Amino acid sequence: MNILVYLQAMSFVLSDEIILNWKNLISEKNSQALKAEMNELFSADIARVMNQLSDEENQFVFQLLDEEARSEVLAELDEDKREFLLESLSTEQIADVLDNLDSDDAADIVSELPEEKQQEVLSQIEDVEQASDIAELIRYEEGTAGSLMAKELVSVYTFETVNQCIDEIRRQADDVTQLYAVYVVDNHERLKGIIPLKKLLISHPLARVEEIYESDIQFVRVDDSLQLVSETMSRYDLVVLPVVDKVGKLVGKITIDDVLDYLKEKSEEDIQRMSGITEDIDVQDKIWKISQARIPWLLIGMGGGIIGSRIIGNYEEHIRIRPEMAFFIPLIGATGGNVGVQSSSIMVQALANNMMFSNVAKKLLKELYVGLFNGLICSSLIFLYAMVAESWKLGLVVSIALFTVIIFASFMGTFVPMTLHRFKINPALATGPFVTTLNDIIGITIYFLVGRILYSMF
Amino acid sequence: MNILVYLQAMSFVLSDEIILNWKNLISEKNSQALKAEMNELFSADIARVMNQLSDEENQFVFQLLDEEARSEVLAELDEDKREFLLESLSTEQIADVLDNLDSDDAADIVSELPEEKQQEVLSQIEDVEQASDIAELIRYEEGTAGSLMAKELVSVYTFETVNQCIDEIRRQADDVTQLYAVYVVDNHERLKGIIPLKKLLISHPLARVEEIYESDIQFVRVDDSLQLVSETMSRYDLVVLPVVDKVGKLVGKITIDDVLDYLKEKSEEDIQRMSGITEDIDVQDKIWKISQARIPWLLIGMGGGIIGSRIIGNYEEHIRIRPEMAFFIPLIGATGGNVGVQSSSIMVQALANNMMFSNVAKKLLKELYVGLFNGLICSSLIFLYAMVAESWKLGLVVSIALFTVIIFASFMGTFVPMTLHRFKINPALATGPFVTTLNDIIGITIYFLVGRILYSMF
Repeated sequence: MNILVYLQAMSFVLSDEIILNWKNLISEKNSQALKAEMNELFSADIARVMNQLSDEENQFVFQLLDEEARSEVLAELDEDKREFLLESLSTEQIADVLDNLDSDDAADIVSELPEEKQQEVLSQIEDVEQASDIAELIRYEEGTAGSLMAKELVSVYTFETVNQCIDEIRRQADDVTQLYAVYVVDNHERLKGIIPLKKLLISHPLARVEEIYESDIQFVRVDDSLQLVSETMSRYDLVVLPVVDKVGKLVGKITIDDVLDYLKEKSEEDIQRMSGITEDIDVQDKIWKISQARIPWLLIGMGGGIIGSRIIGNYEEHIRIRPEMAFFIPLIGATGGNVGVQSSSIMVQALANNMMFSNVAKKLLKELYVGLFNGLICSSLIFLYAMVAESWKLGLVVSIALFTVIIFASFMGTFVPMTLHRFKINPALATGPFVTTLNDIIGITIYFLVGRILYSMF
Repeated sequence: MNILVYLQAMSFVLSDEIILNWKNLISEKNSQALKAEMNELFSADIARVMNQLSDEENQFVFQLLDEEARSEVLAELDEDKREFLLESLSTEQIADVLDNLDSDDAADIVSELPEEKQQEVLSQIEDVEQASDIAELIRYEEGTAGSLMAKELVSVYTFETVNQCIDEIRRQADDVTQLYAVYVVDNHERLKGIIPLKKLLISHPLARVEEIYESDIQFVRVDDSLQLVSETMSRYDLVVLPVVDKVGKLVGKITIDDVLDYLKEKSEEDIQRMSGITEDIDVQDKIWKISQARIPWLLIGMGGGIIGSRIIGNYEEHIRIRPEMAFFIPLIGATGGNVGVQSSSIMVQALANNMMFSNVAKKLLKELYVGLFNGLICSSLIFLYAMVAESWKLGLVVSIALFTVIIFASFMGTFVPMTLHRFKINPALATGPFVTTLNDIIGITIYFLVGRILYSMF
């Protein structure tokens, strides 16, 4: 066999052609051809195609899958697509699906069900241990280590031998799909350490656990935050992290793939917060929901605009005499806004990376220097332009105002996120539209104030 | 021993007190106390403290570390701190450090050295294989799978037995710190599949590799993009991914922790692009570099402001008669900007998640509906305000203009990122300031146009 052909066959690239082909096969009810297509694919890829199909089409595809594939596909599907499929399944069918999944994936699905259905589904899961694991997992608060962990793990006692460890792994081989380490516990099931699989492989079969296990390990508690979980795993380059309860008992483990999903969601959420969207929304969400998530910051921004209109309103006569003052309102506002967003986005990232408070004064000073520098460049350029296009007086007004606005915006862009952070508010939340609105108001105030003073001087 | 005491001791929380304590010990040249502090910590944590110290302080700390810790700390340090330390080390000392590191971390450090130093350092590495591995790795282009991979891996032939695999692992045990799977190759070293360590553990010692290996696996090529690498690993929940060359030969592996670092960097970069910062910069960077990265978009924004001033300039007489028209310039601009950023940030995320092009028309339509809805709410509110505060005529002008601007901004916020994406430009790059500037200009144009038409009608 030509190995290159084999290698090329492995990478599945989702395309519009593939989706169209599936849609055609579904409308023709061509089960055989569809099954042949699906046999070529991993479950994750079947789910990717299904995320692009309609709910009705998905129903047809789903009933063609065998039991194991059903579970895997369901775990990988987008939430809204899954919701529809779950509604069309009986509680018994859902229970079968859950039986085949890791406890964390199963718990995610159960927690999406309406509460009255949860009880029913759980009671119909054949494997009682799996059912009680799921029941435990759905009780942990969202955002905690407990909510992300899985119950599947292999644990051994300090007095056991390597051979006994391997027997234990063999016994649990079906349950634990991804195994990277074996956990060591004392006779109260409290976490003592780990044995990496590599160490098990190269140790003498009769060596005792207590001789070979590593006690210098990282772990988290069930109620620790996911922030701490992800920081710990990325800092110490871990692929799996044990979770203990209040008395140190080993209760679960968190794997890196779940942390990856969490981080992705969080970074999307941060970008949305910075863009003035209050809730975590998808492109798939309903129009009403999207609108609701966006209107609050629009209204706050409009409030800022109204304040701006009142400030300008104070200069009504001034504008009547010198309408050219109005020309540069957008320039002052936009530049102030841009500078503020630049400063604040850097600040938000520094805060997310756990910047030490001892560095605060230094950062503020640096931002001011950058502002000073960029302010000089921008205001010199605008002075030249306004002088040529309008008059040297207006040039002076605009450039002095712009310079002041840039310095101010640099300061606000640094100060606001730090203050929010100090008061335990997510700095990304209010950074974007908040800083922009604030800078708009301040910018206009400075601009007209400078205008009044300078025009009255000359 | 009370296990809870033991458990609490494990989590290291970096605080201002710790940093101050280290600084004091360094200024007292108290090597013994410092060493005692460091003995309690993982290398990653020592690096975290050192990232908060000055370069001179770091030099003192560094010479207290033993050889292995030096390597690990250097690999974990921030780039600018590392750069300084590397400058103060002889090429021989750097070679020693590199000898103790995984090939990918070592290659990262070498590629940061000035070119004339690279040669010298590589020639002084004792382990010749390590030196040639590093020399190979630094040649791969940044952003490709090759640039992120490590050379350390355990590979076996199809005709070998489980026992021989374990011997192979034992032989390479020191080189490969994190081992999750053994790779299977044919006698031309071409990738055939993998054996997870778990499978090795539970298989019969005399079973042959060809009987137990998994051939249905994921892999990437050396010149595949890191985007593809991270998508593949997160889609199929992998912790390690083999890398092959053009003819299918196994040349390296990529581990999830490196992908995590890459994703983090990329998401920070995207946020900076959206905030109008052209280069990837840190809070640590020099003022000049920060300023340089920010000025281009400020100038583009100012260009937009100047165009805005010319548009308003066309209405000079209009403003002289009705200065109240100027009051709402900031409101129109800000709301248009906010709406545009909201739409575009959602779009950029959808594009990053590989939205299918078949959905484009649907997305555009949905955005327009959301815009219609939010536009109605915002413009009704502003009509009421402007009517009460100024006049019903101005109310009509502002509300009709605002409504039009919101619809337009929704459209632009969707259309611009899609177009950039189509032309293979990172949509995040130009989304923030670009869309805002564009919306500002369009907003003002619409506002004054509506004003002229309506005022001439009544």
